Amino acid sequence: MKLDGIHRRSIEPTSSGKTVRILDQRLLPWETRWVELTTAADAARAITEMWTRGAPLLAMTAAYGFAMALRDDPSDAALARAYDLLLATRPTAINLRWALDEMRTATISLPPAERARAAYTRAAALCDEDVALNRAIGGHGLDLLRALHARAPGRPLNILTHCNAGWLATVDYGTALAPLYLAQDEGLPIHVWVDETRPRNQGALLTAFELAGHGVPHMVIADNVGGLLMRRGEVDLVIVGADRVTANGDVCNKIGTYLKALAAADNGVPFYVALPYTTIDRAMPDGNSIPIEERSPDELALLTGPAADGIETVRVTASPAYNPAFDVTPARLVTGYITEKGVIAAIA
Amino acid sequence: MKLDGIHRRSIEPTSSGKTVRILDQRLLPWETRWVELTTAADAARAITEMWTRGAPLLAMTAAYGFAMALRDDPSDAALARAYDLLLATRPTAINLRWALDEMRTATISLPPAERARAAYTRAAALCDEDVALNRAIGGHGLDLLRALHARAPGRPLNILTHCNAGWLATVDYGTALAPLYLAQDEGLPIHVWVDETRPRNQGALLTAFELAGHGVPHMVIADNVGGLLMRRGEVDLVIVGADRVTANGDVCNKIGTYLKALAAADNGVPFYVALPYTTIDRAMPDGNSIPIEERSPDELALLTGPAADGIETVRVTASPAYNPAFDVTPARLVTGYITEKGVIAAIA
Repeated sequence: MKLDGIHRRSIEPTSSGKTVRILDQRLLPWETRWVELTTAADAARAITEMWTRGAPLLAMTAAYGFAMALRDDPSDAALARAYDLLLATRPTAINLRWALDEMRTATISLPPAERARAAYTRAAALCDEDVALNRAIGGHGLDLLRALHARAPGRPLNILTHCNAGWLATVDYGTALAPLYLAQDEGLPIHVWVDETRPRNQGALLTAFELAGHGVPHMVIADNVGGLLMRRGEVDLVIVGADRVTANGDVCNKIGTYLKALAAADNGVPFYVALPYTTIDRAMPDGNSIPIEERSPDELALLTGPAADGIETVRVTASPAYNPAFDVTPARLVTGYITEKGVIAAIA
Repeated sequence: MKLDGIHRRSIEPTSSGKTVRILDQRLLPWETRWVELTTAADAARAITEMWTRGAPLLAMTAAYGFAMALRDDPSDAALARAYDLLLATRPTAINLRWALDEMRTATISLPPAERARAAYTRAAALCDEDVALNRAIGGHGLDLLRALHARAPGRPLNILTHCNAGWLATVDYGTALAPLYLAQDEGLPIHVWVDETRPRNQGALLTAFELAGHGVPHMVIADNVGGLLMRRGEVDLVIVGADRVTANGDVCNKIGTYLKALAAADNGVPFYVALPYTTIDRAMPDGNSIPIEERSPDELALLTGPAADGIETVRVTASPAYNPAFDVTPARLVTGYITEKGVIAAIA
C-alpha cells in the first residue's frame, strides 16, 4: 500500500537487514511514526503495548523478534527463551503461535552459527507469503468489483466496509481492503463508505488513513448510516473481514457487522467476507458456539484524539456502558467468501 | 420525570409566574444548569442556540416567549413582532408554528390589557396538554410492558431505545421513554439498553441522563451492539420515537433506527414506535418521499466532552465525513405504534 506516494509494507526490514521498522498504530492517523525494533524485547513490547495490531502483522512482528533474539544469542536456551517471551505477548493468538512454531522449526536443528541467518530468511519468507495470500484475495475480489462495475460503468462503484481489515492488520494489502487497492491501482473507479466502527473507531482512524494514503476516494460515516445508504441504492457491495468463520459459514467479526449484513440482505446488496482459509474454524459447527469477548467499558466511555492543545481524552457518557467486541453474522446473510483460492458461495 | 428525587418538568414557570426555567441541555449530563428565561429574546436565543431541543419543548419555549413579549408590550405591533421573532428561530418546525398560532389566536382579539394574562394561561395549558398526551402514550405502552413481563416474570424486562425521545424533548415523560418511567414508578422491573446514537450521542448523553435521574437501570451501548443482544435474546422489545410517520406507516426517525428494526424483525423482537397522532403526516404517502436532512460533517468528526482539565473538543477522524440525520424504517418492520389513543398495529 502507498503512503506519501511510496509503496510500503506495515513491517519492513531496515537497510541493515538486522532490524525491522513498524508503524506505531496508536498514533494514527494523527502522526505517522515509524519505530525501529532492534531486539526481541522491542518486538514483544510492540505487541503487548499495541503499537501494532492485526493477527497476521503481530505474527510477523514476533517472527522478526525471534530472528533478532538468535542474532544476539543463537544458543538453545536463548531460542527457547525467545519463543516463550514472544508467545506470552498474546497467548491466545493462533497466528502468532503458528509463526513462532515455523521459526523454531526453521532454526532448531541447525548449528547455532547458522540459526540467525536462517531465521531472518524464514521471517522474510513468512512476510512474503502473507503478502502473496492477501494479493490473491485481492485479485479474486477485484474480479467481483470489475463485474459489478460493468453493470453500471458510468459511475464509481460504492463499497461499504466496517472496521479495519486492511494493510495495517497484515503485511500488505489486507483482506477486505485488498480488492479496493488493486481496483485503485488499475484505475477502476471506486468510492468507499467507511464505518466509524465504534467503540474503537478503527474505521474512522485506520481504514480512513489507509485509503487516504493510497489515494482511494472515501467518506467516513457513523455506524448508523449504512442502512439509509443501502435503501437509497448508494452501496453496490459490502466487504468486511472476519476474525473467525465457523464450519457452517457463520462469520464472527467486529461488533456491528451483523447489522450491515441485515441491511444488505434487505436491499439486495451483495455482502462479501474476505478471509484467508486459515480463518475457517472447522472444529466450530456454528456461530452460536463462539464466545464473544467483552472488553472494558472505557473503550466506549472515553475517546482520545487531538484537541486544540494536543491529544486529549474526553468522556462520552456518565452512565455505565457495556462493550462486547464481536458479533456473529449468520451464513444465510453472506453472499460469498473471498479467499486466496477464489470466491466461494458457501463454506463446505 | 425525577431529578435528584424531585419530579420536574423540562420547562417550568418560576415562582413569579412571569418567567420560565429550562435546562441548558448543551451541558448535560456533565452539568445540570437551570436557566431562567425572562424575555421573548431569551426564549428565541434558547431555541436558536440549542439550549433546549425536541419539537414539543421548543414549541412550549416559544409559547412562553410569546407570553413574556405581551407582558412587556401588549400592543398589536409587539404581538406581531414576537410572533415573527419566535417563528424565525426554526421556520420549518411544525409544532413551533402551531404553538405560536395557538398563542396568537388566544390573545389577538382581546384588549391589550388582558393579553398577557391570557397568554400565560394558554402557555400553561399547552404545557399541560403535552404532559397529558405523553402520559397517555406512556399508559398504553405500559400495558405492553406489563404483558411482556408477565411472560417472563422472573427477571427485568430488557428494552432497547435509540436516540432521545424522552422528557428532555417534551415537557414531561417523553414519548418512547414515557412507558419506561411509568413502569419504574409502579415497580415493574426494567433494564434499558441505551444506544449511544452517533454522531450527536443523544442516547449516551441525554437518554442516559434521564434514566439515571429517574433511577431506571440502564447501560449505554455502541450503536453496533443491538444486533448481538437481540440474537442472544437479551432484548424483549425495542421502543423508539419518530420525527414523522407517513400515511402508510413508514417511520422517519434518527439515523440508525432502521438497522435496529431489521435486527428486531430478524430475531422476532417486537419493534414499537411511540408517537402523538400529530406526528402522522397523511399528506406524505410513504417514506421514499421524505427529504433526509444532511447535517455538518463536524458533528461526526468532532466530539466534545469533559477531559482532565475541563471541556475539550477532540477530532474523531482526519478524513471527510458524511452525516445524514435520519433514516426511514419501512412499516413492514414495525410491530405497532404507541399513540395517545392506544396501540395500533398499522396506520390506517
